[in-house]
Amino acid sequence: MFEARLLKANLLKKILESISTLVETANFDCSPSGISLQAMDASHVTLINLILRNDGFESYNCDRSLSLGLSLVSLAKILKCAGNDDVLTLKARDEADTVTFVFESPKNDRISDFEIKLLEIKNEQYGIRDSDHTAVIKMPSAELQRICRDLSIIGEIVTISADKQGVKFSVSGDSGSGNITVRPTSDGDAELATSVDVKEPIVLNFALKFLTHFTKATPLSPSVKISMSDGVPVVVEYKIEDLGYLSFFLAPKLSDE
Amino acid sequence: MFEARLLKANLLKKILESISTLVETANFDCSPSGISLQAMDASHVTLINLILRNDGFESYNCDRSLSLGLSLVSLAKILKCAGNDDVLTLKARDEADTVTFVFESPKNDRISDFEIKLLEIKNEQYGIRDSDHTAVIKMPSAELQRICRDLSIIGEIVTISADKQGVKFSVSGDSGSGNITVRPTSDGDAELATSVDVKEPIVLNFALKFLTHFTKATPLSPSVKISMSDGVPVVVEYKIEDLGYLSFFLAPKLSDE
Amino acid sequence: MFEARLLKANLLKKILESISTLVETANFDCSPSGISLQAMDASHVTLINLILRNDGFESYNCDRSLSLGLSLVSLAKILKCAGNDDVLTLKARDEADTVTFVFESPKNDRISDFEIKLLEIKNEQYGIRDSDHTAVIKMPSAELQRICRDLSIIGEIVTISADKQGVKFSVSGDSGSGNITVRPTSDGDAELATSVDVKEPIVLNFALKFLTHFTKATPLSPSVKISMSDGVPVVVEYKIEDLGYLSFFLAPKLSDE
Repeated sequence: MFEARLLKANLLKKILESISTLVETANFDCSPSGISLQAMDASHVTLINLILRNDGFESYNCDRSLSLGLSLVSLAKILKCAGNDDVLTLKARDEADTVTFVFESPKNDRISDFEIKLLEIKNEQYGIRDSDHTAVIKMPSAELQRICRDLSIIGEIVTISADKQGVKFSVSGDSGSGNITVRPTSDGDAELATSVDVKEPIVLNFALKFLTHFTKATPLSPSVKISMSDGVPVVVEYKIEDLGYLSFFLAPKLSDE
Repeated sequence: MFEARLLKANLLKKILESISTLVETANFDCSPSGISLQAMDASHVTLINLILRNDGFESYNCDRSLSLGLSLVSLAKILKCAGNDDVLTLKARDEADTVTFVFESPKNDRISDFEIKLLEIKNEQYGIRDSDHTAVIKMPSAELQRICRDLSIIGEIVTISADKQGVKFSVSGDSGSGNITVRPTSDGDAELATSVDVKEPIVLNFALKFLTHFTKATPLSPSVKISMSDGVPVVVEYKIEDLGYLSFFLAPKLSDE
Repeated sequence: MFEARLLKANLLKKILESISTLVETANFDCSPSGISLQAMDASHVTLINLILRNDGFESYNCDRSLSLGLSLVSLAKILKCAGNDDVLTLKARDEADTVTFVFESPKNDRISDFEIKLLEIKNEQYGIRDSDHTAVIKMPSAELQRICRDLSIIGEIVTISADKQGVKFSVSGDSGSGNITVRPTSDGDAELATSVDVKEPIVLNFALKFLTHFTKATPLSPSVKISMSDGVPVVVEYKIEDLGYLSFFLAPKLSDE
């Protein structure tokens, strides 16, 4: 028997809106320590890694680990039915072929319950190493979203260059070329601060299309962390309040591609 | 000679936005007691019944009854030209082949007048019996709109079950199934209260598509009344301030359809 | 060497949004006295005339006149990347084949620079005579925008009639016909006042499609000036703060067209 109660149904709604355009089906792996999800997009270019810790839930009961294979498209539809302030309870019986989502409105005058059929999805675990990155950029998530949206009007590949002075996003296309440089901030709201922590200058190229996809997670967090090293995928990570985080991995493009 | 002056042109605008996607042409039947309109949608599944009483108008003159056959599509276009606070005067001469809509802005610095050609439309009267319903539900109109919109993502047929505990809207589809239960409220704003008045429990099925259409009338009223009895059409009624009401009739679907 | 610094990058953004759907490419003619642009739409029905005076810029350096031929579509894309409060610096070297746009955010924590390739565009000068018009109407730009949008639902040709009582916009189409009359205001905010200055009554017909295009310049100014004379193009002019103005010319349609 698995049962988890989340005070903010809204958080799961935002998570699904972030990933359901990249991945159609995925396993929610529920264990005593929490829920995790790993999935690659259809083109096998990006990897999604979601961690929701048990202590971020209002209550969390998981006797033994189980894998809930779900159509993220169906789940996103059902989460659309959740009110912004609803409380969500997630229930699955052992050996069951469905999972139940119960939404309660704050005043308790509306209760909704939805049942989704479970799917058999091959469980792939992608070994994610916690590497020591050459450059770690922390910046307002809305700023990254805006930069990706703006630059994707001009071209398809973005070059991200980071050094102690800041981080530069460059793109070039038929209509011209452009650079947006973001500088570290010293003062102000720590959540919205920009910091650039580099061991040595680094320059990497990425498909702007996928970065733009990742920024759909912007509503989850005011801040985003971008970790880059030569030859390994960039990690774009959004913290999910006290619950965990959602991170995206994208391999750099070789510059002569 | 027919002439009626309505302080809130906006109300007629909202009425047309509620019905012009269901019905293309209709007769506005003007009599000394007020204006009424009855029309069925093209598929003859739903009936619209509109009543605007003479005493809800600022002034109302109708010597003898006349039927103004109008393209609701054309009328909706013209009402789009009305400002939100405009005063509307509706004018038709006896035996005329046009009707005139005059809009005056509150400060009287803009006057618009529009003339629409009248159409010959066969006048059908649908005998509407004021029956004594098994269940009468009063709930916030925005809540009904939201439920219809949310559930229509999941399936096409909604089952409405009412008993003393509340009213349950259920739907099932390929992505799963769901129920939204609304409970009667005791406290709070009477206009936004939910009440469920049932003689005996009742369960009926309806095409969600049409219910969703009806909820386009939501801007007309904060509250909606749903009246159900076995074997007769459900009535979904929106009160139009002091002017009258707009109601929609929809026959239930047999459960084995 | 040409370099101009504009405190409100936003103004150029709004200008481009006003004209880039009418004209695809145009020369920005930079001279010591300022920047001007003249262009006709593809169908050669309307003429755009833009004047930006040197003293409206924060700094303005232009040794000798040069013509910057630009794709307005590309430029509009790049201006989409400007923040609402960004400062813009426009730079072009003599004999260069590109022009550079630099945007600085107010806090100076984000700097963007874009380079656009210059195009060879045949420079046509359209002699614009500053004629003495029969009727000059000043009205809120949002009101003109609304009238054009509303009436274009009904028909394609608008008849504008001006006399001392006010200005009347008339249209007729399959769904009916309509008139919107705007009267001069005496009191209130001078910027939003309506005034009608007529030497003698005048009636002219215009293609509503183009007038509607012109009203895309509404965000530039709260007020618009319409100058009409028999047999010459109407001038629809939007003042651009202390910088200059954007005007559109449209030849009247003969009434028997």
